[in-house]
Amino acid sequence: MATLVSDSLAKKNNDKASANSTAQVIGGHGTNSYSNNSSYQRLSVNIVTKKIEDAIMKNLDVETLSSTSNIFRVADFGCGVGSNTINSMQDLLQIVKKKYISQCPTSSQMPEFQVIFNDQFTNDFNTLFTYLPQDKQYLVASVPGSFHNQVLPKSSLHLAHCSYSLHWLSRLPKELRDERSPAWNKGKIHYTSAPPEVLMAYATQFAEDLDNFLSARGREMVSGGMIVIVGSSIPDGMPYSQVVNGIMFDCMGSILMDMVKTGSISEADVDAFNVPIYACPPGEFIEGVERNGLFSIEVIELMNPAPWLKGPIDIPVFVKHVRAAMEGMFSNHFPSKSIDELFDHLVLKLSDISQQLESCYRDGLQLFAILKRK
Amino acid sequence: MATLVSDSLAKKNNDKASANSTAQVIGGHGTNSYSNNSSYQRLSVNIVTKKIEDAIMKNLDVETLSSTSNIFRVADFGCGVGSNTINSMQDLLQIVKKKYISQCPTSSQMPEFQVIFNDQFTNDFNTLFTYLPQDKQYLVASVPGSFHNQVLPKSSLHLAHCSYSLHWLSRLPKELRDERSPAWNKGKIHYTSAPPEVLMAYATQFAEDLDNFLSARGREMVSGGMIVIVGSSIPDGMPYSQVVNGIMFDCMGSILMDMVKTGSISEADVDAFNVPIYACPPGEFIEGVERNGLFSIEVIELMNPAPWLKGPIDIPVFVKHVRAAMEGMFSNHFPSKSIDELFDHLVLKLSDISQQLESCYRDGLQLFAILKRK
Repeated sequence: MATLVSDSLAKKNNDKASANSTAQVIGGHGTNSYSNNSSYQRLSVNIVTKKIEDAIMKNLDVETLSSTSNIFRVADFGCGVGSNTINSMQDLLQIVKKKYISQCPTSSQMPEFQVIFNDQFTNDFNTLFTYLPQDKQYLVASVPGSFHNQVLPKSSLHLAHCSYSLHWLSRLPKELRDERSPAWNKGKIHYTSAPPEVLMAYATQFAEDLDNFLSARGREMVSGGMIVIVGSSIPDGMPYSQVVNGIMFDCMGSILMDMVKTGSISEADVDAFNVPIYACPPGEFIEGVERNGLFSIEVIELMNPAPWLKGPIDIPVFVKHVRAAMEGMFSNHFPSKSIDELFDHLVLKLSDISQQLESCYRDGLQLFAILKRK
Repeated sequence: MATLVSDSLAKKNNDKASANSTAQVIGGHGTNSYSNNSSYQRLSVNIVTKKIEDAIMKNLDVETLSSTSNIFRVADFGCGVGSNTINSMQDLLQIVKKKYISQCPTSSQMPEFQVIFNDQFTNDFNTLFTYLPQDKQYLVASVPGSFHNQVLPKSSLHLAHCSYSLHWLSRLPKELRDERSPAWNKGKIHYTSAPPEVLMAYATQFAEDLDNFLSARGREMVSGGMIVIVGSSIPDGMPYSQVVNGIMFDCMGSILMDMVKTGSISEADVDAFNVPIYACPPGEFIEGVERNGLFSIEVIELMNPAPWLKGPIDIPVFVKHVRAAMEGMFSNHFPSKSIDELFDHLVLKLSDISQQLESCYRDGLQLFAILKRK
């Protein structure tokens, strides 16, 4: 179950423009680095690999794609840092090659393959490159910039991958910080357990981000190219307070308000801070893709990202993962000395409610979707 | 004149495989960083911009290139880190756009432009990206890997730029460290003032590197695409001991041997250390391009990289530039505490012979070449 939380927090906000887009994961290889605390992510990736393989074997027409180009480009949008990133892309390449062999058995040769890593300008691409194997059989490029904009040449991309990145909003809606707005998110750090206007503000921003993402990929991708999307979701109509992430955000908010009382931080700082994460239910996702109009939906489903994880959560390990993903976001907003206090208290508070966490809804929190460029 | 030296030392060795390919420039933005000590490089770049413009306006057939692609890709091979890198590429783009407007005045629109930054895997791409302007009008990618190999897809590149990078050897010839070889480079750190066998070993390695570079670009570039090469050179037949760089390498070698006497470093360490830089004379360069056969030579000339620089050299500033470019190479081989000693002594020793430095040959030490893919 820990996976559900650490996955959806694992990737950083893919936008450098917003003042609140500070959800930076810890780079490098240190103890608290994301690269050393992302083993759960890898487990989660494995379970979808088979689904991706099924979809590619069934839906990706590599014969047509290779008739117009001798290069096959695969891009990871919101790649982050870590060996999981490289492994996922290598898994994808293996599947595509398998499809080539299956669909074009008489073809004299494979196309060249280029793997493109995209994330915002501040991503630690230097560290990412250290994970590349020496004997890799593909070309590599990194492309910095928000994936809400076009970052690759027109009609140059054949397969896109976006795992646990789309849920990071490009910016936080202004009304969350506007005292005069019904969406003012006073005393909370997320839409969990907040007034419906807060949820609506998040959902509206997500819909705009999704549309920008799809329009940008629409320009970059060749007709027939596919996007694999894996990410944080929730069944239509279910409140976020019923899932572990929501409970954790509520705990964090309540710890921060306690820290206001002891004078560690100011109330205004808590009011002004909101976690820019939105778990889009499938209904809204489908609506967004259809409204955009550039892609058909080949597969869409909710799944349990880690059905093998049973029993009690190891709270300290779980919080360590959360911290690796979220520390940057907090330390850019709150005094650095308050960060230890926040995460130490989070361990205690979550331990107190571990039974509640374990009884949470956990099955359909991962969206898996395959889109195809029309 | 300082430019001559700092330019040719400015870029790092573009090969991660060799044990001696440790000529890493200092990344980041610190006092000794290359990015903060490369103002001379920018001056040097300016003087060739006009020559590049002339060559592109005359020789680059953008009409033909744009008939087969709606993207125009420009790549910098051995890009290093710093604002000069970005500025040079932006200058190139401006020239190409000017050519488009001139050659295709009735065309409805420009192609998209993508600027690709290549350097070895250990280059500080993170810092490089911080220099990109927010309002850039082109797409960006970084491509890690030795430029002696193919790093871009076949037939995808239209214009290549390689400034002060080719002179870094991909590896040091083994015989330089072989006591039984006539090319054993005992008590010296470069081919300057060394036996002819040492020079020959360097020249042979350079010829192999140049051939690999051209073959790799040959695969990556479209027919009619151009390579701009700017780099360290010397008139055919002139010994390297007649130019500032050579004198400096001799000084460094002699300082290191003095440090052996005081016990700061071991003699074996000096014997085993060689600066992997080769200033190719134009005759050898032409021979290499013709032997490779994939490119025609449109322009080739020797020039003075900084004719405006007159009068005495500011030795401390000059050594600071050298150190920014070379410190990594030395600190990977010698004890770190000996590095300050080396560069402190270099200031003193060069100051002692400042008149000799100023009377050095200085005119034709920069090779400028434009090659065109057949």
